[in-house]
Amino acid sequence: MKLKVYADRMSQPSRAVLIFCKVNGIDFEEIKVEISKRQQSSPEFQAINPFKKLPAIVDGRFKLFESHAILIYLVSAFPGVADHWYPADISRRAKIHSVLDWHHMNLRRGAATFVLNTVLAPILGLPLNQQAAAEAENILISSLSKIENIWLKGNGRYLLGGLQPSIADLSLVCEIMQLELLDEKDRDRILGPHKKVQQWIESTRNATRPHFDEVHNVLYKLKMKLRDAGMDSRIKTGLTSKM
Amino acid sequence: MKLKVYADRMSQPSRAVLIFCKVNGIDFEEIKVEISKRQQSSPEFQAINPFKKLPAIVDGRFKLFESHAILIYLVSAFPGVADHWYPADISRRAKIHSVLDWHHMNLRRGAATFVLNTVLAPILGLPLNQQAAAEAENILISSLSKIENIWLKGNGRYLLGGLQPSIADLSLVCEIMQLELLDEKDRDRILGPHKKVQQWIESTRNATRPHFDEVHNVLYKLKMKLRDAGMDSRIKTGLTSKM
Repeated sequence: MKLKVYADRMSQPSRAVLIFCKVNGIDFEEIKVEISKRQQSSPEFQAINPFKKLPAIVDGRFKLFESHAILIYLVSAFPGVADHWYPADISRRAKIHSVLDWHHMNLRRGAATFVLNTVLAPILGLPLNQQAAAEAENILISSLSKIENIWLKGNGRYLLGGLQPSIADLSLVCEIMQLELLDEKDRDRILGPHKKVQQWIESTRNATRPHFDEVHNVLYKLKMKLRDAGMDSRIKTGLTSKM
Repeated sequence: MKLKVYADRMSQPSRAVLIFCKVNGIDFEEIKVEISKRQQSSPEFQAINPFKKLPAIVDGRFKLFESHAILIYLVSAFPGVADHWYPADISRRAKIHSVLDWHHMNLRRGAATFVLNTVLAPILGLPLNQQAAAEAENILISSLSKIENIWLKGNGRYLLGGLQPSIADLSLVCEIMQLELLDEKDRDRILGPHKKVQQWIESTRNATRPHFDEVHNVLYKLKMKLRDAGMDSRIKTGLTSKM
Protein backbone atom coordinates (compact mmCIF):
# COMPACT_ATOMS: atom_id res chain seq x y z
CA MET A 1 0.00 0.00 0.00
CA LYS A 2 1.29 3.44 -0.96
CA LEU A 3 2.52 5.80 1.76
CA LYS A 4 -0.16 8.38 2.64
CA VAL A 5 0.93 11.90 3.62
CA TYR A 6 -1.78 13.98 5.31
CA ALA A 7 -0.82 17.59 4.74
CA ASP A 8 -1.90 21.18 4.29
CA ARG A 9 0.59 23.04 2.12
CA MET A 10 -0.13 26.14 4.22
CA SER A 11 1.58 24.32 7.12
CA GLN A 12 5.37 24.60 7.06
CA PRO A 13 6.14 21.16 8.51
CA SER A 14 3.71 19.68 5.96
CA ARG A 15 5.71 21.37 3.20
CA ALA A 16 8.99 19.98 4.52
CA VAL A 17 7.66 16.41 4.44
CA LEU A 18 6.10 16.81 0.96
CA ILE A 19 9.29 18.30 -0.51
CA PHE A 20 11.39 15.57 1.10
CA CYS A 21 9.24 12.81 -0.43
CA LYS A 22 9.30 14.40 -3.87
CA VAL A 23 13.05 15.12 -3.88
CA ASN A 24 13.82 11.56 -2.81
CA GLY A 25 11.46 9.86 -5.23
CA ILE A 26 9.33 8.34 -2.46
CA ASP A 27 6.06 7.11 -3.94
CA PHE A 28 3.24 8.64 -1.89
CA GLU A 29 -0.30 9.89 -1.98
CA GLU A 30 -0.90 13.43 -0.70
CA ILE A 31 -4.14 13.72 1.24
CA LYS A 32 -5.22 17.30 1.76
CA VAL A 33 -6.43 18.25 5.23
CA GLU A 34 -7.41 21.92 5.20
CA ILE A 35 -6.71 23.72 8.47
CA SER A 36 -8.78 26.74 7.37
CA LYS A 37 -11.78 24.37 7.21
CA ARG A 38 -10.78 22.72 10.51
CA GLN A 39 -10.54 19.36 8.75
CA GLN A 40 -7.76 18.34 11.15
CA SER A 41 -10.48 18.06 13.84
CA SER A 42 -12.58 15.52 11.90
CA PRO A 43 -13.05 12.11 13.56
CA GLU A 44 -11.35 10.51 10.51
CA PHE A 45 -8.20 12.56 10.97
CA GLN A 46 -8.21 12.25 14.75
CA ALA A 47 -8.04 8.48 14.26
CA ILE A 48 -4.67 9.13 12.59
CA ASN A 49 -3.45 11.94 14.86
CA PRO A 50 -5.41 12.49 18.09
CA PHE A 51 -3.44 15.72 18.57
CA LYS A 52 -5.13 17.16 15.43
CA LYS A 53 -1.87 18.44 13.96
CA LEU A 54 -0.37 18.22 10.49
CA PRO A 55 1.47 16.55 8.88
CA ALA A 56 0.86 12.89 9.63
CA ILE A 57 1.64 9.74 7.66
CA VAL A 58 0.14 6.30 7.33
CA ASP A 59 2.50 3.61 6.02
CA GLY A 60 0.59 0.34 5.86
CA ARG A 61 -0.76 -0.03 9.39
CA PHE A 62 1.80 2.36 10.88
CA LYS A 63 0.67 5.88 11.80
CA LEU A 64 3.03 8.71 12.72
CA PHE A 65 2.92 12.45 13.37
CA GLU A 66 5.43 15.21 14.25
CA SER A 67 7.33 16.27 11.13
CA HIS A 68 10.88 15.69 12.44
CA ALA A 69 9.94 12.15 13.50
CA ILE A 70 8.34 11.60 10.08
CA LEU A 71 11.42 12.80 8.18
CA ILE A 72 13.69 10.50 10.20
CA TYR A 73 11.31 7.57 9.70
CA LEU A 74 11.16 8.13 5.94
CA VAL A 75 14.96 8.10 5.69
CA SER A 76 15.05 4.75 7.49
CA ALA A 77 12.00 3.12 5.91
CA PHE A 78 12.56 4.03 2.26
CA PRO A 79 15.69 2.89 0.47
CA GLY A 80 17.71 5.21 -1.71
CA VAL A 81 17.67 8.41 0.37
CA ALA A 82 21.16 9.96 0.12
CA ASP A 83 23.19 9.88 3.35
CA HIS A 84 23.53 13.68 3.60
CA TRP A 85 19.84 14.04 4.54
CA TYR A 86 20.39 12.14 7.82
CA PRO A 87 23.94 10.77 8.05
CA ALA A 88 24.61 7.30 9.42
CA ASP A 89 27.65 8.72 11.27
CA ILE A 90 26.48 9.06 14.88
CA SER A 91 28.22 12.38 15.56
CA ARG A 92 26.85 14.09 12.48
CA ARG A 93 23.43 12.60 13.14
CA ALA A 94 23.56 13.83 16.76
CA LYS A 95 24.26 17.39 15.61
CA ILE A 96 21.24 17.24 13.30
CA HIS A 97 19.08 16.08 16.24
CA SER A 98 20.46 19.02 18.20
CA VAL A 99 19.37 21.53 15.52
CA LEU A 100 15.94 19.88 15.19
CA ASP A 101 15.40 19.96 18.98
CA TRP A 102 16.47 23.60 19.11
CA HIS A 103 14.03 24.43 16.28
CA HIS A 104 10.86 23.75 18.35
CA MET A 105 11.19 26.34 21.08
CA ASN A 106 13.09 28.90 19.05
CA LEU A 107 12.64 29.39 15.30
CA ARG A 108 9.31 27.53 15.12
CA ARG A 109 7.84 29.19 18.18
CA GLY A 110 8.93 32.64 16.96
CA ALA A 111 8.03 32.35 13.26
CA ALA A 112 4.72 30.50 13.58
CA THR A 113 3.38 32.70 16.40
CA PHE A 114 4.50 35.90 14.65
CA VAL A 115 2.95 35.07 11.27
CA LEU A 116 -0.24 33.82 12.95
CA ASN A 117 -0.64 37.05 14.91
CA THR A 118 0.24 39.45 12.12
CA VAL A 119 -1.25 37.84 8.99
CA LEU A 120 -3.02 34.51 9.37
CA ALA A 121 -5.33 34.93 12.38
CA PRO A 122 -8.05 36.88 10.52
CA ILE A 123 -7.98 34.34 7.68
CA LEU A 124 -8.53 31.54 10.20
CA GLY A 125 -11.22 33.50 12.02
CA LEU A 126 -9.03 34.05 15.09
CA PRO A 127 -8.34 37.31 16.94
CA LEU A 128 -4.95 39.03 16.47
CA ASN A 129 -2.90 39.12 19.66
CA GLN A 130 -0.50 42.06 19.45
CA GLN A 131 1.39 41.19 22.62
CA ALA A 132 1.96 37.64 21.41
CA ALA A 133 3.14 39.06 18.08
CA ALA A 134 5.64 41.36 19.81
CA GLU A 135 7.04 38.55 21.99
CA ALA A 136 7.21 36.21 18.99
CA GLU A 137 9.06 38.82 16.94
CA ASN A 138 11.79 38.93 19.58
CA ILE A 139 12.09 35.12 19.59
CA LEU A 140 12.09 35.08 15.77
CA ILE A 141 14.79 37.72 15.37
CA SER A 142 16.94 36.13 18.07
CA SER A 143 16.52 32.72 16.38
CA LEU A 144 17.50 34.07 12.96
CA SER A 145 20.53 35.71 14.48
CA LYS A 146 21.54 32.41 16.11
CA ILE A 147 21.14 30.57 12.81
CA GLU A 148 23.26 33.25 11.11
CA ASN A 149 26.04 33.28 13.71
CA ILE A 150 26.05 29.79 15.21
CA TRP A 151 24.32 27.14 13.09
CA LEU A 152 25.61 28.60 9.80
CA LYS A 153 29.13 29.19 11.12
CA GLY A 154 31.83 27.90 8.81
CA ASN A 155 32.23 27.77 5.07
CA GLY A 156 29.55 25.23 4.14
CA ARG A 157 26.36 26.34 2.45
CA TYR A 158 24.20 24.50 4.95
CA LEU A 159 23.71 24.22 8.73
CA LEU A 160 26.59 22.73 10.73
CA GLY A 161 29.00 23.53 7.91
CA GLY A 162 27.32 20.99 5.61
CA LEU A 163 28.12 20.85 1.91
CA GLN A 164 24.75 19.26 1.15
CA PRO A 165 21.36 19.74 2.86
CA SER A 166 20.08 17.62 5.73
CA ILE A 167 16.53 17.20 7.01
CA ALA A 168 17.34 20.03 9.45
CA ASP A 169 18.03 22.45 6.58
CA LEU A 170 14.78 21.54 4.89
CA SER A 171 12.74 21.76 8.08
CA LEU A 172 14.10 25.13 9.20
CA VAL A 173 14.02 26.72 5.74
CA CYS A 174 10.36 25.70 5.30
CA GLU A 175 9.67 27.38 8.64
CA ILE A 176 11.29 30.63 7.53
CA MET A 177 9.49 30.56 4.18
CA GLN A 178 6.22 31.52 5.88
CA LEU A 179 7.73 35.00 6.32
CA GLU A 180 6.87 35.42 2.62
CA LEU A 181 3.35 36.26 3.83
CA LEU A 182 4.49 39.30 5.79
CA ASP A 183 4.23 42.84 4.61
CA GLU A 184 7.37 43.56 2.50
CA LYS A 185 8.65 46.11 5.03
CA ASP A 186 8.29 43.70 7.98
CA ARG A 187 9.97 40.92 6.05
CA ASP A 188 12.93 43.11 5.06
CA ARG A 189 13.34 44.37 8.61
CA ILE A 190 13.39 40.82 10.00
CA LEU A 191 15.26 38.89 7.30
CA GLY A 192 17.31 41.74 5.79
CA PRO A 193 20.18 41.75 8.30
CA HIS A 194 20.71 37.98 7.99
CA LYS A 195 22.69 37.59 4.78
CA LYS A 196 23.88 34.03 5.42
CA VAL A 197 20.32 32.97 6.20
CA GLN A 198 19.18 34.41 2.86
CA GLN A 199 21.94 32.57 0.95
CA TRP A 200 21.11 29.34 2.80
CA ILE A 201 17.42 29.61 1.84
CA GLU A 202 18.47 29.99 -1.80
CA SER A 203 20.87 27.03 -1.55
CA THR A 204 18.12 24.84 -0.08
CA ARG A 205 15.67 25.99 -2.74
CA ASN A 206 18.22 25.18 -5.48
CA ALA A 207 19.05 21.77 -4.01
CA THR A 208 15.38 20.76 -3.97
CA ARG A 209 14.24 22.24 -7.30
CA PRO A 210 11.64 22.17 -8.78
CA HIS A 211 9.73 20.69 -5.84
CA PHE A 212 10.55 23.50 -3.43
CA ASP A 213 8.73 26.17 -5.43
CA GLU A 214 5.99 23.81 -6.54
CA VAL A 215 5.07 22.97 -2.93
CA HIS A 216 5.46 26.61 -1.80
CA ASN A 217 3.27 27.87 -4.64
CA VAL A 218 0.21 28.08 -2.38
CA LEU A 219 2.18 30.52 -0.21
CA TYR A 220 3.28 32.66 -3.16
CA LYS A 221 -0.34 32.85 -4.35
CA LEU A 222 -1.64 33.87 -0.94
CA LYS A 223 1.13 36.47 -0.73
CA MET A 224 -0.11 38.02 -4.00
CA LYS A 225 -3.71 38.02 -2.76
CA LEU A 226 -2.68 39.65 0.52
CA ARG A 227 -0.65 42.26 -1.35
CA ASP A 228 -3.50 43.08 -3.73
CA ALA A 229 -5.92 43.19 -0.81
CA GLY A 230 -3.61 45.49 1.14
CA MET A 231 -4.21 48.18 -1.49
CA ASP A 232 -7.87 48.46 -0.53
CA SER A 233 -9.12 47.64 2.94
CA ARG A 234 -12.59 46.80 1.61
CA ILE A 235 -11.09 44.08 -0.60
CA LYS A 236 -9.04 42.89 2.38
CA THR A 237 -12.15 42.43 4.48
CA GLY A 238 -13.82 40.55 1.65
CA LEU A 239 -10.73 38.41 1.18
CA THR A 240 -10.30 37.43 4.79
CA SER A 241 -13.92 36.47 5.18
CA LYS A 242 -13.81 34.26 2.11
CA MET A 243 -10.51 32.48 2.76
CA MET B 1 39.11 10.53 27.90
CA LYS B 2 36.06 10.19 30.14
CA LEU B 3 32.70 11.58 28.98
CA LYS B 4 31.99 14.98 30.55
CA VAL B 5 28.41 15.90 31.41
CA TYR B 6 27.85 19.60 32.12
CA ALA B 7 24.74 19.79 34.26
CA ASP B 8 22.78 21.59 36.95
CA ARG B 9 20.62 19.14 38.87
CA MET B 10 18.02 21.90 39.20
CA SER B 11 17.52 21.60 35.41
CA GLN B 12 15.16 18.79 34.45
CA PRO B 13 16.87 17.84 31.16
CA SER B 14 20.18 17.75 33.07
CA ARG B 15 18.64 15.29 35.51
CA ALA B 16 17.39 13.05 32.69
CA VAL B 17 20.88 12.80 31.19
CA LEU B 18 22.57 12.17 34.58
CA ILE B 19 20.07 9.45 35.54
CA PHE B 20 20.43 7.84 32.12
CA CYS B 21 24.23 7.67 32.43
CA LYS B 22 24.06 6.24 35.95
CA VAL B 23 21.38 3.66 35.18
CA ASN B 24 23.29 2.46 32.13
CA GLY B 25 26.70 2.32 33.79
CA ILE B 26 28.20 4.94 31.50
CA ASP B 27 31.48 6.18 32.98
CA PHE B 28 31.29 9.97 33.13
CA GLU B 29 32.39 13.05 35.00
CA GLU B 30 29.64 15.41 36.17
CA ILE B 31 30.66 19.04 35.84
CA LYS B 32 28.40 21.38 37.75
CA VAL B 33 27.29 24.54 36.00
CA GLU B 34 25.09 26.52 38.37
CA ILE B 35 22.30 28.42 36.64
CA SER B 36 21.53 30.42 39.81
CA LYS B 37 25.11 31.78 39.57
CA ARG B 38 24.74 32.30 35.80
CA GLN B 39 27.71 29.99 35.20
CA GLN B 40 26.13 28.88 31.92
CA SER B 41 27.04 32.32 30.55
CA SER B 42 30.77 31.97 31.28
CA PRO B 43 33.10 32.08 28.26
CA GLU B 44 34.31 28.55 29.18
CA PHE B 45 30.81 27.11 28.97
CA GLN B 46 29.87 29.13 25.90
CA ALA B 47 32.78 27.45 24.12
CA ILE B 48 30.87 24.18 24.72
CA ASN B 49 27.34 25.47 24.15
CA PRO B 50 27.03 28.93 22.57
CA PHE B 51 23.30 28.83 23.39
CA LYS B 52 24.18 28.85 27.14
CA LYS B 53 21.80 26.00 27.96
CA LEU B 54 22.20 22.86 30.04
CA PRO B 55 22.92 19.99 29.77
CA ALA B 56 25.81 19.63 27.36
CA ILE B 57 28.36 16.88 26.89
CA VAL B 58 31.94 16.66 25.70
CA ASP B 59 33.03 13.23 24.47
CA GLY B 60 36.65 13.46 23.38
CA ARG B 61 36.60 16.32 20.87
CA PHE B 62 32.86 16.02 20.26
CA LYS B 63 30.55 18.60 21.86
CA LEU B 64 26.76 18.28 21.99
CA PHE B 65 23.78 20.00 23.59
CA GLU B 66 19.98 19.53 23.67
CA SER B 67 19.07 16.72 26.05
CA HIS B 68 17.08 14.57 23.61
CA ALA B 69 19.95 14.65 21.12
CA ILE B 70 22.37 13.78 23.96
CA LEU B 71 20.29 10.80 25.12
CA ILE B 72 20.10 9.41 21.57
CA TYR B 73 23.84 9.95 21.07
CA LEU B 74 24.68 8.15 24.32
CA VAL B 75 22.61 5.12 23.30
CA SER B 76 24.53 4.93 20.03
CA ALA B 77 28.01 5.80 21.29
CA PHE B 78 28.14 3.65 24.44
CA PRO B 79 27.78 -0.12 24.20
CA GLY B 80 25.53 -2.06 26.52
CA VAL B 81 22.50 0.23 26.72
CA ALA B 82 19.41 -2.01 26.67
CA ASP B 83 17.29 -1.79 23.52
CA HIS B 84 14.14 -0.62 25.31
CA TRP B 85 15.68 2.82 25.95
CA TYR B 86 15.77 3.57 22.21
CA PRO B 87 14.71 0.55 20.16
CA ALA B 88 16.53 -0.37 16.97
CA ASP B 89 13.14 -1.18 15.37
CA ILE B 90 12.41 1.82 13.14
CA SER B 91 8.68 2.02 13.91
CA ARG B 92 9.14 1.94 17.68
CA ARG B 93 12.02 4.40 17.40
CA ALA B 94 9.87 6.72 15.27
CA LYS B 95 7.13 6.77 17.92
CA ILE B 96 9.70 7.72 20.56
CA HIS B 97 10.90 10.58 18.33
CA SER B 98 7.25 11.64 18.01
CA VAL B 99 6.82 11.84 21.82
CA LEU B 100 10.14 13.69 22.23
CA ASP B 101 9.21 16.22 19.54
CA TRP B 102 5.79 16.74 21.12
CA HIS B 103 7.43 17.30 24.52
CA HIS B 104 9.12 20.61 23.54
CA MET B 105 6.11 22.77 22.76
CA ASN B 106 3.71 21.07 25.17
CA LEU B 107 4.78 19.50 28.46
CA ARG B 108 8.14 21.28 28.61
CA ARG B 109 6.76 24.66 27.64
CA GLY B 110 3.92 24.34 30.16
CA ALA B 111 5.82 22.88 33.12
CA ALA B 112 9.01 24.92 32.88
CA THR B 113 7.22 28.24 32.36
CA PHE B 114 4.71 27.53 35.12
CA VAL B 115 7.28 26.55 37.76
CA LEU B 116 9.52 29.47 36.78
CA ASN B 117 6.69 31.97 37.18
CA THR B 118 5.23 30.56 40.39
CA VAL B 119 8.30 29.40 42.37
CA LEU B 120 11.71 29.81 40.78
CA ALA B 121 11.77 33.39 39.43
CA PRO B 122 12.43 35.07 42.81
CA ILE B 123 15.21 32.57 43.54
CA LEU B 124 16.84 33.43 40.21
CA GLY B 125 16.32 37.16 40.75
CA LEU B 126 13.71 37.39 38.01
CA PRO B 127 10.26 39.01 38.17
CA LEU B 128 7.17 36.78 38.43
CA ASN B 129 4.93 37.02 35.39
CA GLN B 130 1.39 36.09 36.42
CA GLN B 131 -0.02 36.14 32.91
CA ALA B 132 2.74 33.82 31.69
CA ALA B 133 2.02 31.54 34.67
CA ALA B 134 -1.69 31.39 33.82
CA GLU B 135 -1.03 30.60 30.14
CA ALA B 136 1.58 28.00 31.12
CA GLU B 137 -0.82 26.34 33.56
CA ASN B 138 -3.29 25.79 30.72
CA ILE B 139 -0.59 24.26 28.52
CA LEU B 140 0.65 22.11 31.43
CA ILE B 141 -2.79 20.75 32.36
CA SER B 142 -3.65 20.10 28.72
CA SER B 143 -0.30 18.30 28.26
CA LEU B 144 -0.81 16.10 31.34
CA SER B 145 -4.27 15.22 30.14
CA LYS B 146 -2.85 14.23 26.72
CA ILE B 147 -0.19 12.07 28.37
CA GLU B 148 -2.90 10.44 30.50
CA ASN B 149 -5.34 9.80 27.65
CA ILE B 150 -3.17 9.43 24.56
CA TRP B 151 0.48 8.66 25.25
CA LEU B 152 -0.32 6.35 28.19
CA LYS B 153 -3.19 4.63 26.38
CA GLY B 154 -3.03 0.85 26.58
CA ASN B 155 -1.97 -1.57 29.26
CA GLY B 156 1.78 -0.93 29.40
CA ARG B 157 3.30 0.91 32.34
CA TYR B 158 5.12 3.32 30.08
CA LEU B 159 4.44 5.69 27.18
CA LEU B 160 3.28 4.12 23.90
CA GLY B 161 2.18 1.01 25.77
CA GLY B 162 5.79 0.12 26.63
CA LEU B 163 6.60 -2.59 29.17
CA GLN B 164 9.98 -0.99 29.92
CA PRO B 165 11.01 2.67 29.94
CA SER B 166 12.45 4.53 26.95
CA ILE B 167 14.39 7.79 26.85
CA ALA B 168 11.02 9.50 26.30
CA ASP B 169 9.68 8.20 29.63
CA LEU B 170 12.78 9.42 31.45
CA SER B 171 12.78 12.80 29.74
CA LEU B 172 9.09 13.54 30.33
CA VAL B 173 9.02 12.23 33.90
CA CYS B 174 12.02 14.41 34.84
CA GLU B 175 10.09 17.36 33.40
CA ILE B 176 7.05 16.63 35.56
CA MET B 177 9.19 16.10 38.68
CA GLN B 178 9.79 19.85 38.90
CA LEU B 179 6.16 20.15 40.03
CA GLU B 180 7.50 18.88 43.39
CA LEU B 181 8.49 22.50 44.01
CA LEU B 182 4.92 23.78 43.84
CA ASP B 183 2.76 24.54 46.79
CA GLU B 184 1.09 21.24 47.84
CA LYS B 185 -2.36 22.56 46.90
CA ASP B 186 -1.27 23.63 43.41
CA ARG B 187 0.49 20.33 42.84
CA ASP B 188 -2.55 18.28 43.87
CA ARG B 189 -4.87 20.38 41.72
CA ILE B 190 -2.64 19.89 38.66
CA LEU B 191 -1.40 16.32 39.09
CA GLY B 192 -4.24 14.88 41.16
CA PRO B 193 -6.71 14.11 38.36
CA HIS B 194 -4.05 12.26 36.33
CA LYS B 195 -3.87 8.83 37.96
CA LYS B 196 -2.06 7.06 35.13
CA VAL B 197 0.53 9.84 35.05
CA GLN B 198 1.15 9.34 38.77
CA GLN B 199 1.57 5.57 38.35
CA TRP B 200 3.90 6.12 35.40
CA ILE B 201 6.10 8.49 37.44
CA GLU B 202 6.37 5.79 40.13
CA SER B 203 7.17 3.11 37.55
CA THR B 204 9.92 5.25 36.07
CA ARG B 205 11.29 6.03 39.52
CA ASN B 206 11.32 2.29 40.37
CA ALA B 207 12.96 1.33 37.09
CA THR B 208 15.81 3.78 37.66
CA ARG B 209 16.38 3.31 41.40
CA PRO B 210 18.38 4.42 43.30
CA HIS B 211 19.68 6.99 40.82
CA PHE B 212 16.31 8.65 40.27
CA ASP B 213 15.96 9.86 43.85
CA GLU B 214 19.67 10.50 44.27
CA VAL B 215 19.69 12.91 41.31
CA HIS B 216 16.37 14.48 42.34
CA ASN B 217 17.56 14.99 45.90
CA VAL B 218 18.43 18.65 45.24
CA LEU B 219 14.78 19.20 44.30
CA TYR B 220 13.46 17.48 47.42
CA LYS B 221 15.77 19.61 49.58
CA LEU B 222 14.67 22.83 47.92
CA LYS B 223 11.05 21.74 48.35
CA MET B 224 11.61 21.41 52.11
CA LYS B 225 13.29 24.81 52.26
CA LEU B 226 10.44 26.42 50.35
CA ARG B 227 7.88 24.75 52.59
CA ASP B 228 9.65 25.89 55.76
CA ALA B 229 10.07 29.37 54.32
CA GLY B 230 6.41 29.53 53.35
CA MET B 231 5.53 29.50 57.07
CA ASP B 232 7.20 32.85 57.61
CA SER B 233 7.46 35.46 54.90
CA ARG B 234 10.51 37.07 56.51
CA ILE B 235 12.40 33.79 56.24
CA LYS B 236 11.20 33.44 52.65
CA THR B 237 12.67 36.81 51.72
CA GLY B 238 15.97 35.83 53.34
CA LEU B 239 15.92 32.48 51.57
CA THR B 240 15.30 33.82 48.10
CA SER B 241 18.05 36.40 48.37
CA LYS B 242 20.58 33.79 49.47
CA MET B 243 19.79 31.04 46.96
